Amino acid sequence: MSGSPAVSRQEFDAIFAAVRTWGSWSPADRGAWNRVTPEHVRRATALVRSGTAVPLGLPWDTRAGPDNDRPALHHMTDLGDVEPAEPATYKDFIAADFHGKAVSHLDALAHVAYRGRLYDGRTAREAVGASGARFGSVAALGPLVTKGVLLDLPAVLGVGWLEPGHPVHARDVAAAERALGVTVDDGCAVLLRSGRFRRRRELGPWDVGAASAGLHVDAVPLLAERAIALLGGDGDSDLRPSPVEGVHSPVHALAVAAMGVPLLDNLDLEALSAACAGAGRYEFMIVVSPLNVPGGTGSPVNPVAIL
Amino acid sequence: MSGSPAVSRQEFDAIFAAVRTWGSWSPADRGAWNRVTPEHVRRATALVRSGTAVPLGLPWDTRAGPDNDRPALHHMTDLGDVEPAEPATYKDFIAADFHGKAVSHLDALAHVAYRGRLYDGRTAREAVGASGARFGSVAALGPLVTKGVLLDLPAVLGVGWLEPGHPVHARDVAAAERALGVTVDDGCAVLLRSGRFRRRRELGPWDVGAASAGLHVDAVPLLAERAIALLGGDGDSDLRPSPVEGVHSPVHALAVAAMGVPLLDNLDLEALSAACAGAGRYEFMIVVSPLNVPGGTGSPVNPVAIL
Amino acid sequence: MSGSPAVSRQEFDAIFAAVRTWGSWSPADRGAWNRVTPEHVRRATALVRSGTAVPLGLPWDTRAGPDNDRPALHHMTDLGDVEPAEPATYKDFIAADFHGKAVSHLDALAHVAYRGRLYDGRTAREAVGASGARFGSVAALGPLVTKGVLLDLPAVLGVGWLEPGHPVHARDVAAAERALGVTVDDGCAVLLRSGRFRRRRELGPWDVGAASAGLHVDAVPLLAERAIALLGGDGDSDLRPSPVEGVHSPVHALAVAAMGVPLLDNLDLEALSAACAGAGRYEFMIVVSPLNVPGGTGSPVNPVAIL
Amino acid sequence: MSGSPAVSRQEFDAIFAAVRTWGSWSPADRGAWNRVTPEHVRRATALVRSGTAVPLGLPWDTRAGPDNDRPALHHMTDLGDVEPAEPATYKDFIAADFHGKAVSHLDALAHVAYRGRLYDGRTAREAVGASGARFGSVAALGPLVTKGVLLDLPAVLGVGWLEPGHPVHARDVAAAERALGVTVDDGCAVLLRSGRFRRRRELGPWDVGAASAGLHVDAVPLLAERAIALLGGDGDSDLRPSPVEGVHSPVHALAVAAMGVPLLDNLDLEALSAACAGAGRYEFMIVVSPLNVPGGTGSPVNPVAIL
Repeated sequence: MSGSPAVSRQEFDAIFAAVRTWGSWSPADRGAWNRVTPEHVRRATALVRSGTAVPLGLPWDTRAGPDNDRPALHHMTDLGDVEPAEPATYKDFIAADFHGKAVSHLDALAHVAYRGRLYDGRTAREAVGASGARFGSVAALGPLVTKGVLLDLPAVLGVGWLEPGHPVHARDVAAAERALGVTVDDGCAVLLRSGRFRRRRELGPWDVGAASAGLHVDAVPLLAERAIALLGGDGDSDLRPSPVEGVHSPVHALAVAAMGVPLLDNLDLEALSAACAGAGRYEFMIVVSPLNVPGGTGSPVNPVAIL
Repeated sequence: MSGSPAVSRQEFDAIFAAVRTWGSWSPADRGAWNRVTPEHVRRATALVRSGTAVPLGLPWDTRAGPDNDRPALHHMTDLGDVEPAEPATYKDFIAADFHGKAVSHLDALAHVAYRGRLYDGRTAREAVGASGARFGSVAALGPLVTKGVLLDLPAVLGVGWLEPGHPVHARDVAAAERALGVTVDDGCAVLLRSGRFRRRRELGPWDVGAASAGLHVDAVPLLAERAIALLGGDGDSDLRPSPVEGVHSPVHALAVAAMGVPLLDNLDLEALSAACAGAGRYEFMIVVSPLNVPGGTGSPVNPVAIL
Repeated sequence: MSGSPAVSRQEFDAIFAAVRTWGSWSPADRGAWNRVTPEHVRRATALVRSGTAVPLGLPWDTRAGPDNDRPALHHMTDLGDVEPAEPATYKDFIAADFHGKAVSHLDALAHVAYRGRLYDGRTAREAVGASGARFGSVAALGPLVTKGVLLDLPAVLGVGWLEPGHPVHARDVAAAERALGVTVDDGCAVLLRSGRFRRRRELGPWDVGAASAGLHVDAVPLLAERAIALLGGDGDSDLRPSPVEGVHSPVHALAVAAMGVPLLDNLDLEALSAACAGAGRYEFMIVVSPLNVPGGTGSPVNPVAIL
Repeated sequence: MSGSPAVSRQEFDAIFAAVRTWGSWSPADRGAWNRVTPEHVRRATALVRSGTAVPLGLPWDTRAGPDNDRPALHHMTDLGDVEPAEPATYKDFIAADFHGKAVSHLDALAHVAYRGRLYDGRTAREAVGASGARFGSVAALGPLVTKGVLLDLPAVLGVGWLEPGHPVHARDVAAAERALGVTVDDGCAVLLRSGRFRRRRELGPWDVGAASAGLHVDAVPLLAERAIALLGGDGDSDLRPSPVEGVHSPVHALAVAAMGVPLLDNLDLEALSAACAGAGRYEFMIVVSPLNVPGGTGSPVNPVAIL
């Protein structure tokens, strides 16, 4: 992609080493969420002004498509005719192989290994098996309540969306902070809006694994320096095609495996963008509460921004 | 159960008619959640003191047992050997037929029909089909942010737990309010702790469908009068065996179908009980954010209490 | 499709009435399989010459595609690390919403209703609910052992495959019988080869719901007259687009709902075609053994032709 | 269990070495099924006399219980109201983690490893991963058509069933052959009836993992000498508790990993027992046709005995 200078594997490994926080935290598998203290929670609370709660989760999508190759399941298991009345009960079954491009979900630290190591240097092969993750599971994370920051790039640039393949560099993050009047700081949750779902609604779905707007790896050291707790967006944070040779998801590797920063993938940020624009503020309280799955490498979620 | 006076079907129907709020709300399928205004959100925020976030979701339970007859599923779908590295990715699949006694979940208004009618008088057979609910789905609810109140009955009574079959009457609710210094008021979320999971950890699982502590129907008019938004607990709110002839889950029928009050079932309230005792306060901010399942009759959830 | 004269709804209903066998069988939900007596089994056995067994089931397909919109699931649940050794055990989970175009499966009589009626005139709404089928389930069918006949149309026509949309008329069935030296007679299983999977391997997958070679409704009375027990093929027997106005799957309606003839959909007939060509015979013993699913409307299957 | 002399690990390993057929077959992952030639198929066909087909698959069991800790799933996905009519279609979803004690299934050679090795000496850790088995999958087996022999032990002993824990020794197999007039010979399928499901129907379910009638390891060399192709039964062939120290499923290890003999577990042999008794013959044609799951370690099946 023009504008995305190729990054060698050697350069990437240097970034990895520079942003790595292994050995810093206890419990290690909460990673950067350890940064979020009760004081951060109270400060996040103070960001609530209007009392508007905006959900960020996509609709559960059971239809296969170019950006949904493992569709979620939703089956009715009782239509008032299985269990005895009264009352009659209506029940359903949901299922998802949720990592990928179609389900709003949280990546726990067990989701990504680079050169065989999970976050904190744990050997992936020993830490994760058929019964799940013994280190870095989503159950070790629990919920997160902190300050959220929306980096609404299309709003900054005055466009409907970033085109697939559009890189977001460190300088773009800094420019967005200034333009939107926000500060990415320690313990916060950074949400990057590319306008993916506005584009999808207007132009139809496309193969986001092949081409997505996302963070260039050169932006990651800035996020590391600011000591963020969580990174997310309407994509999966990674720029595709990847600018790093031999690394298909370099931001995943850096955020999750090096920095211990969980990722929020595939959020619907359209309503939040409108709410922030209306309020003239791009900071808010955010609550992310993954399902409590022992050994799980992540969870479907429906995060809530409270303005 | 001694102490649980039998309630005739006629008496039950009179309560149903008395607490019914059909025709009151728009959109109707958000039911009592329409009571929660941005003002309620701001007031809930003001309840945060220490900044402690307590998750209320049980561990995802894949083992069958006397209180888990449809165990949830958790499968690893990638152990770093399916998708190409680098990075290696670890993925999982989760699934649940979540209504029942083993998964912490929210009941949306499409979950319960009494005499063929869902909340707001909708004909259940027309509103819910094999593709899901056209009225009363969990997607219509979205997230809830409001004041939560823990009615910690064992704390009030100075016992480890309420025995299975122990009824909680209107007078017990009122006594708990006084003892715990809380007020059940409009738009709030009421959580009833019976100590189920403390008992389970000490004595082992039992068939909670056969015997559970829970609300007697005589407590429901009080909750209706107070205009609550949400009712939940470590059981499913219903007393079992049911005191109402011919109605196996009378609180479900009253709360969901008559009052439009969603239910939160099977919460783990042990940590919250300890946190409230420690803080000397049984009121807090609560955030409940179900998955955004179009047509879903509910959702697994991991609610968060913020003290 | 040129060559496929449109059939009015009135004409279709006349065919339906003409081929209908309601009230003929006991148990009714075995339908045309009641034709297959022990004598038929013995005669089928006598068709075995070389002792070659040819499976007809497609590979379980977990990848979404234009002809697989609800991909099957296959998860490993133990990789020798869940249950204690010795021995170590490796286990898997399979799942499928198997009706559709991607799984080789049998349609039981509960699968199709026309004008609200299942086979034998049963009211579909009363016979099938969220807990499954009370009439016409696959468990009522059990296994079938009988004579199989391969109507290998591409072999007859000297082409690689029939193009999508190519109709197979009554006269084509009769011509195939003559050309291949076979007789479609009472109690037999008729398998129609269109060459779908040869075409797919050479040209790639396409949306077979939009365009498929298949039986024109004018061929069904001939099959009814011959008193067949089972109809199947490498498609789903139906010609698409449908030649019948307002009826998307007319052969399904006629075979299953009118005649009580179960269908075998999405068979891989390429190896059988080669085996029959090699043997110079298009008749064989066939064994179809669906899973014993009480209330099931069908089953994934891997039928075996024995030459 | 009295009557089950303890077998040391050393003795077990000697049996393992004695019955091992590694390096004998090509393709190796069809193992002992390579013994079944077209000639065996023809001879099996000649065993059909009456033309009675008896299915051996248990009902798909969705209820948890002492012998069903991972219940199968069966969901209706269309009740005529999802896809457009006409015709209306009724569809379902089935799923199972089928190894265990509740689903009639076939174990492929990838299911069992002893001392880290699958059949033919393949290293299990390299051969099986999260995407399935690269060696020994059920897709490599395909269908089996051969002579079946029912070793109906309760019929031989004149009892309703063998009590849980009852061992079947080599001498019992030989005695059963004489009493029933059958010969276990090369390429045949041996089915052992313990009467498990008659006992279950009369006395209720029990934990068969803790106590089951089954083959003592001393019977395995006889089966190896006879060069059987398939072993199965109404249990999982193994005697429990195991008579071998440190090996919980010794017959699984010997049959699958040493001999390359797939296993058929949890068959319902009650109807076959009655049919054989009625016919006065305990030999028949058997057809086992697993689903064609690439990489699968086995498959649910509904084998058919044809008398």
